[in-house]
Amino acid sequence: MQSTQILTLIRLLSKLPSLGPRSGRRIALHLLKNRETLLGPLKEALIQADLHLKTCSTCFNLDTQDPCGLCEDHRRDNTTLCIIEDVADLWALERVGSYKGRYHILGGALSALNGKGPEDLTIDPLIKRLELFPFSEVILALSATVEGQTTLHYICERLSMAHPTLKVTTIAHGVPLGGELDFLDDGTIATAFQGRSTVNW
Amino acid sequence: MQSTQILTLIRLLSKLPSLGPRSGRRIALHLLKNRETLLGPLKEALIQADLHLKTCSTCFNLDTQDPCGLCEDHRRDNTTLCIIEDVADLWALERVGSYKGRYHILGGALSALNGKGPEDLTIDPLIKRLELFPFSEVILALSATVEGQTTLHYICERLSMAHPTLKVTTIAHGVPLGGELDFLDDGTIATAFQGRSTVNW
Repeated sequence: MQSTQILTLIRLLSKLPSLGPRSGRRIALHLLKNRETLLGPLKEALIQADLHLKTCSTCFNLDTQDPCGLCEDHRRDNTTLCIIEDVADLWALERVGSYKGRYHILGGALSALNGKGPEDLTIDPLIKRLELFPFSEVILALSATVEGQTTLHYICERLSMAHPTLKVTTIAHGVPLGGELDFLDDGTIATAFQGRSTVNW
Repeated sequence: MQSTQILTLIRLLSKLPSLGPRSGRRIALHLLKNRETLLGPLKEALIQADLHLKTCSTCFNLDTQDPCGLCEDHRRDNTTLCIIEDVADLWALERVGSYKGRYHILGGALSALNGKGPEDLTIDPLIKRLELFPFSEVILALSATVEGQTTLHYICERLSMAHPTLKVTTIAHGVPLGGELDFLDDGTIATAFQGRSTVNW
């Protein structure tokens, strides 16, 4: 009843994150009903993305050029290096716009469940990069999850052996802005208490 | 920071039903990270769908051939015609598999809000089809929404003028299977009471 082409399209769409068979079917139909305005452009966008996008060999960002635009940008601060898990984190930090240094994308976090070991992350290239470029501070901006914090400790250990004099910092954990104590989990509240700072009058 | 190719891809993905900017970004990254297994096949599926799929000129179904596979299938019952709003409804009915007659897809429902008038639906082709093929029953399987029921009344009026002797039926409305009265809206309960039938001992 449904042709192979439709079934293949639905199957592939259903595999995308946050989508399932039902939304896959809905999107497939929506695409087929809007060929000129949606299916055609999306097809073209995928072709262009596949054709032009590559991974930066320095920071492992996704861009049309290698080294990527951020690594090439001479206005950025060469003394700080921010270590993040994913390209999505880079996009989030760039949306905020307050960090002006360099980036290093790990490509995920250590996770026994997902079978991600140190060799799956870009930790070796990071150690090498730090040998070649004299960053004065490395900022670890990793998720406040078990995986993120495991990765943080592993990287700290590796860095302490390879570059013992390097200044390594991590982003603050605590109550998010707009957060009410009543709605926060115990872990966040405990962390916020441990990380308390003196109020300057 | 994000290249044009990525931005275009995210913009197009965000426009898909049930997706927004955040899930669009997530899906774009997921696609770019899984080029071989996902981006490539999806690109190919869109190319194939765009190339091969057409609308059936008889029932307005989507298929690789015109007339579509369902219209061509000689095993199906030629005496009943089921009128539905959308291709998705056809897929749902075919999943159930109990209906074995022919279909006619309206291409939506009348809606003043969405600017859909009778000329946007395939009502004129339906009237013509009924002149050419002698169906003995027309089943209206439209949504139990204001738009669906408006469309039902409009089609009934048109059919009563063009084919006054035709038997026209509509699917039953009432308590869905597994539905508990306590959780149902007043409209459904009232409709279920109106449509009550005698219990056969």
